[in-house]
Amino acid sequence: MEKQKVNVSMAVIRRLPKYHRYLSELVEKGVTRISSKEFGRGLGLNASQVRQDLNCFGGFGQQGYGYNVKELRDEIADILGIHRENNAIIVGAGNLGQAIANYSGFRGSGFELKGLFDLNPRLVGIRIGTVNIMDIDEMEDFIKKENINVGIICTPKEAAQETAERLVNSGIKAIWNFAPTILNVPDDVIVENVHLNESLRVLAYLIKEREVQNGI
Amino acid sequence: MEKQKVNVSMAVIRRLPKYHRYLSELVEKGVTRISSKEFGRGLGLNASQVRQDLNCFGGFGQQGYGYNVKELRDEIADILGIHRENNAIIVGAGNLGQAIANYSGFRGSGFELKGLFDLNPRLVGIRIGTVNIMDIDEMEDFIKKENINVGIICTPKEAAQETAERLVNSGIKAIWNFAPTILNVPDDVIVENVHLNESLRVLAYLIKEREVQNGI
Repeated sequence: MEKQKVNVSMAVIRRLPKYHRYLSELVEKGVTRISSKEFGRGLGLNASQVRQDLNCFGGFGQQGYGYNVKELRDEIADILGIHRENNAIIVGAGNLGQAIANYSGFRGSGFELKGLFDLNPRLVGIRIGTVNIMDIDEMEDFIKKENINVGIICTPKEAAQETAERLVNSGIKAIWNFAPTILNVPDDVIVENVHLNESLRVLAYLIKEREVQNGI
Repeated sequence: MEKQKVNVSMAVIRRLPKYHRYLSELVEKGVTRISSKEFGRGLGLNASQVRQDLNCFGGFGQQGYGYNVKELRDEIADILGIHRENNAIIVGAGNLGQAIANYSGFRGSGFELKGLFDLNPRLVGIRIGTVNIMDIDEMEDFIKKENINVGIICTPKEAAQETAERLVNSGIKAIWNFAPTILNVPDDVIVENVHLNESLRVLAYLIKEREVQNGI
């Protein structure tokens, strides 16, 4: 399966989790096979887009049959690395950090949350979900001891860059960033940003455009 | 400015908040003009992509001069509807709902958070940031009385569809959805999804791919 993975665009990669979710729903409903047309319709994509995307990874469909739902779901899960084990910590135990610590999706996506760090001494020791809030000064030791490979930044914007540098200096090469800022990190460090601000501004734009179209 | 807004793709729309943020940073630094090449470099895009995107909205640059940073920032703010006033409520006052209620980006993106609703009576009355948690049964009246036009869904996945239907039945036509599910709503209702799960799975994929490339 690794043989064809050349030049897969981020746009395709970002659709894979949607494919996986939709296929999981179909498996639950007892659907065993699906055409690329039906598959696309369920996701708001056309059939040729679905076929083209899946071809990037080797192409699992059979002409005249379509896709075997369960097989395709399992293939995509493998591609996504869902069965890997990544060890993550959260930095910043404010409201957002605590919400993310309670997020139930880690394990199902190949992650285990191992700890939560903050510089506020009043937060240290509090249990959130399955982990404890620890003092930020213990972070570097913890990363080495617990084999942490993913840092989740939930600090205020102002502390995010310094946090990223501390994580990178401790050997972390993958960051899930919730702070509304662009992190400056070495090229070999993966940063996946969750920019709520951008999502909210897209919503504002779409509302405004609809009002313009409706002549409001 | 409205004259050219035909067929603007979601990909372009999603880049506008990034443009706005970068230009705001430049204004703060005292930069007055920028070429499309420098502009692109600051955002990891090439110059022709930047020019093409901005042309969708009328094209603000001058050949040989580039863009006036402050003017372009203001134009993009207008396009994004940042100076509008949308009234929003959050449904679901768990960890995530409370984190979002404390999110400081609403006002700067054209939104005012007016309230927070939950069905848990133990949460009702608690103040989070600038708003109070209210009983979900008061939601429909509140939407009408306070002229709410945006609903933010922070409920568990299982309650999200029902919540969306209640919001739509109360006249809400724009939803910011944090629940990990695809909402079924009428065509004229805007849904902007924040799928943490998808973002996390993209991160898992990128980590796995790097390991494969490094032969781990």
